[in-house]
Amino acid sequence: MKYREIQIQYNSFQIQHKKPFGAVLKDQEIQFTLSVKHAMNPEVTFVVSKEGQGEQYLKMSSREEGTFTASFSSPALGLCFYFFILNYDDHGMRRTVYLGAPTQGNGGETVARENRWELIPYQITVHNYQKSAPGWYKNAVFYQIFVDRFFNGEEHGKVRSPKKNSFLYATWDDSPMYIKDHQGNILRWDFFGGNLKGVLQKLDYLKSLGIGGIYLNPIFKARSNHKYDTGDYMKIDEMFGDEETFKTLLQEAEKRGIRIVLDGVFNHVGADSKYFNAFGSYETVGAAQSTDSPYYSWFNFFQYPHDYESWWGVKDLPNVNENVDSYKNFIVGKNGVIDKWSRMGIGGWRLDVADEMPDKFIEEIRQAMDTVSEDQVLIGEVWEDASNKIAYGKRRRYLLGDELHGTMNYPFKDGVIAYLNGHMRAKDLYMRFMSLKENYPPEALYSALNNLGTHDTRRILTELKDTRKLQVAVGLLLTFPGVPCIYYGDEAGMEGEADPFNRGPYPWGKESPEIFAIYQSMIKLRKNHEALTSGEFIPFYQEEMFGFLRKTEEECHLILVNSKPEKVRTVLADVIGLENMTCDISAQFGEVHYLEPYSFMHQHISLK
Amino acid sequence: MKYREIQIQYNSFQIQHKKPFGAVLKDQEIQFTLSVKHAMNPEVTFVVSKEGQGEQYLKMSSREEGTFTASFSSPALGLCFYFFILNYDDHGMRRTVYLGAPTQGNGGETVARENRWELIPYQITVHNYQKSAPGWYKNAVFYQIFVDRFFNGEEHGKVRSPKKNSFLYATWDDSPMYIKDHQGNILRWDFFGGNLKGVLQKLDYLKSLGIGGIYLNPIFKARSNHKYDTGDYMKIDEMFGDEETFKTLLQEAEKRGIRIVLDGVFNHVGADSKYFNAFGSYETVGAAQSTDSPYYSWFNFFQYPHDYESWWGVKDLPNVNENVDSYKNFIVGKNGVIDKWSRMGIGGWRLDVADEMPDKFIEEIRQAMDTVSEDQVLIGEVWEDASNKIAYGKRRRYLLGDELHGTMNYPFKDGVIAYLNGHMRAKDLYMRFMSLKENYPPEALYSALNNLGTHDTRRILTELKDTRKLQVAVGLLLTFPGVPCIYYGDEAGMEGEADPFNRGPYPWGKESPEIFAIYQSMIKLRKNHEALTSGEFIPFYQEEMFGFLRKTEEECHLILVNSKPEKVRTVLADVIGLENMTCDISAQFGEVHYLEPYSFMHQHISLK
Repeated sequence: MKYREIQIQYNSFQIQHKKPFGAVLKDQEIQFTLSVKHAMNPEVTFVVSKEGQGEQYLKMSSREEGTFTASFSSPALGLCFYFFILNYDDHGMRRTVYLGAPTQGNGGETVARENRWELIPYQITVHNYQKSAPGWYKNAVFYQIFVDRFFNGEEHGKVRSPKKNSFLYATWDDSPMYIKDHQGNILRWDFFGGNLKGVLQKLDYLKSLGIGGIYLNPIFKARSNHKYDTGDYMKIDEMFGDEETFKTLLQEAEKRGIRIVLDGVFNHVGADSKYFNAFGSYETVGAAQSTDSPYYSWFNFFQYPHDYESWWGVKDLPNVNENVDSYKNFIVGKNGVIDKWSRMGIGGWRLDVADEMPDKFIEEIRQAMDTVSEDQVLIGEVWEDASNKIAYGKRRRYLLGDELHGTMNYPFKDGVIAYLNGHMRAKDLYMRFMSLKENYPPEALYSALNNLGTHDTRRILTELKDTRKLQVAVGLLLTFPGVPCIYYGDEAGMEGEADPFNRGPYPWGKESPEIFAIYQSMIKLRKNHEALTSGEFIPFYQEEMFGFLRKTEEECHLILVNSKPEKVRTVLADVIGLENMTCDISAQFGEVHYLEPYSFMHQHISLK
Repeated sequence: MKYREIQIQYNSFQIQHKKPFGAVLKDQEIQFTLSVKHAMNPEVTFVVSKEGQGEQYLKMSSREEGTFTASFSSPALGLCFYFFILNYDDHGMRRTVYLGAPTQGNGGETVARENRWELIPYQITVHNYQKSAPGWYKNAVFYQIFVDRFFNGEEHGKVRSPKKNSFLYATWDDSPMYIKDHQGNILRWDFFGGNLKGVLQKLDYLKSLGIGGIYLNPIFKARSNHKYDTGDYMKIDEMFGDEETFKTLLQEAEKRGIRIVLDGVFNHVGADSKYFNAFGSYETVGAAQSTDSPYYSWFNFFQYPHDYESWWGVKDLPNVNENVDSYKNFIVGKNGVIDKWSRMGIGGWRLDVADEMPDKFIEEIRQAMDTVSEDQVLIGEVWEDASNKIAYGKRRRYLLGDELHGTMNYPFKDGVIAYLNGHMRAKDLYMRFMSLKENYPPEALYSALNNLGTHDTRRILTELKDTRKLQVAVGLLLTFPGVPCIYYGDEAGMEGEADPFNRGPYPWGKESPEIFAIYQSMIKLRKNHEALTSGEFIPFYQEEMFGFLRKTEEECHLILVNSKPEKVRTVLADVIGLENMTCDISAQFGEVHYLEPYSFMHQHISLK
């Protein structure tokens, strides 16, 4: 970058400036190298702080004229933030410039600012990520199932154990809707009648698609169709099946090389639960019924019994206090919730609202899982860059090594959609992905559960409205680092605005063959090339073209994407982001590439 | 009655004053006799008018001192109104008094009024009721069935042909509810899944109960659960069954001595109908789709196509114009709606909102029915005294002989409930019933379809909240002149506030044995004594006790009712209303009767 006449070179993405790239282990040394040209008597100070602690000032040494170096290692886990102060002479005055990151949360080329208060420091993630996520998980293509809407496996489509005072959709083709009062409260829950037997009967389909992992939305007994309002953590909801069905499902899935991850909702329970029991549906005494209830201490009552802390003010979802021993013990103790289901042989847990849970509690969940088996994965629901998320005034530590293996990658989805719809430039998409790569511990990046949509978002086809754009998005999902997760029915061409329309019934027999072929071929692509799972991820861009390499010692894959409605010409030698490459990409893949409108291009070469 | 010192005697209920009692045939002579005592030089003028025509003044003759007579016969059908003018000398002045009915719509003892504008004339109903309702109808105990809520006859309770984008109640025990938007429009229809096969399977039950007629709420194809929004008059709704099922139902019912009356909804259709087709659900072109539609002329569009006349402003129910030939022909013509279903062998029709339909059209419906068979009954929905109802500025003529056989008797229900809940005195109940008896052509009284509640009212047990009161009400229903009709489930002890709660699912297996026994014994009572069906009806009262006789040449029944929470003593010789009796009731039934709190007492004697 240039500041007045001075040339300053520092780019956190480049190893000639910061080595090693990205997140580091505790005590791992990082070399910083910054160059300054055309400044009189320059001095550069490296300023670093462990978050929440005082700043250290290190004068950078300059063996070579205009090149300044410093090294740093952090003895503590967490985030460090750094920047540089450049002092120089200017017509007899000693001047000061602050050199920091271009934007909040992103690394890359430095930006000089004259005022300290304008400065944005660079982030360093210091982790102790030692146990990586299980191999089966990292190698799998995942499939998310909202059970009530997937498939009804009962004979003649009979709905299993319908709940009193609820509604069943009259046909499987109905459009979902909430039945609410004027205040927006749910009056009755609505069900299509999908169940675990239905999932069981579709295992062969999933296997043939190449699926290796299923993420099931919650399946424990609960009043709603989504079951985030847990009623009993120890029981499968009777509409979905029973424990025997679930065990059979686990076994049959495993036979087909598929493992099943459960949705763990431990931040709140249902008002209609064994624990709170606001409506007396359960025989035992709940916290809402008596202060003598064994569950009373789990909840925070402002005024007993009607005023209590609840999730985002939704009275149907009373918050639990994860610091209360009896609750903790119930979830993570011997014969507790984690213990019971993990022992049954599930593939792991997806933690609902992980960013609202105490780090200690997540760590204990992980320990309870690891006690049973280290072959189970723990994924957290996080909507942003999970490396630097602050929630409830606290920096979250779940990706530092002792808690989650990975998080749901919504930034990936958001970036892809914004880019393909023309709301984000290729450069910004590049910046977003480079920053994820820089900020996340590498294992966390490769263990992220990437998606193009979930039960909490609009469906991808509804976002993109175009099959060609969809093909690009699916191509990116299946070639990106991390674990791709397909939301049920996206492969069938389902559309859907926000909840409840994103939870429509799977259109069995009415799938779009064109869209199904896209998913099928992209999954096949990933399964055929190990590098698309484990290979190094090297993004780049040129104008509005975005691309990346996936590279192992054996092979190298080139992905080029055109988000424009017109044909685009890309000259590989000119792209931004491949400056560090030791090999000649142009020579290997050909210098010039023409990309069709809204297209996804893949090439690969062997390096042996 | 006394007016100053003058004694005037005229009571339209008594044959010494007006002979014959009640409604008369065209050209039938009526003798009026009025007595005046303690008036100087009295002269009485009889004033009568055919409604809408000029008044006739007849000076009454006086052969005997103080007794004035006149006779009158009407050459035209319809209502006549009459009163008397008394002139007499008072201290040298010639004075005038107007003698009319006590209250609007009621006959009985005359009331003298000094001002003409205060006068309420007496009513005479002049009819030509020649063909009485079919005998099977008049002898039957009816049962009303709201099909979706009665019984699902499919195997395993599977719902037959559910409609797309509708809701099914999850369990048969659910409480009914509407699914509406903020403006009160139905968003989706809700179904329990009762059907004609269900009715078929319960025929033996109905037979064992003593039922001889079923009034079915509408069963033609329609979007709603109530089906008053007819979609296709020529088809049974597919959720209810098909034509074959309906034919089987008719045959099986007939085998058991039960006939089935259909609900004819000819005042409006559904917006979602073959005829209007606002949503394009039907393949042919509806009025809302094109002005070239063959159905276009049936409707009154204010502004095409979105602004049109509809039933009480409910846009889902566009009104049809019953004067349009093509519509008329469709309903009453050869191979039309009436023709088709009447030929199939139904027991007749109940005409929805009869009071909103042109008299001519009802007459044509009756003719279309009679062409097929004179053994079918035509009943109209009317909520008030049907003899003098004015609707849309016109006096309705449906009970004069050429149109309806009878009407739904809501005044009976309203009177019984008000009396039993202490909101109406025994005298007023007596007046109400005497007036019905006086105003209705006798055949119309004996062809009224009496009820204690329907799909349009709160359920009777909910109104009365007391099993003893219920017993009285059911006793009155089953001993009253006219055809008793039991609303499905009332006999099982169902409760229910207004729509939708009055349309709950029949609680099969959970019936109240106590309430069932009440209905069973009262039905048996009626079935055992022909006089309770056809006998003369002679009501009376004493203080808060209400009673009546049902009398044939063979037997006489005494019914006494106590609506009070305390025991009551009745002396038959002192009751009001039996003054005309030629026999000595006290001698026959015993002079003094003690009635338990809230009780129904029945005795009968043979007169042979």
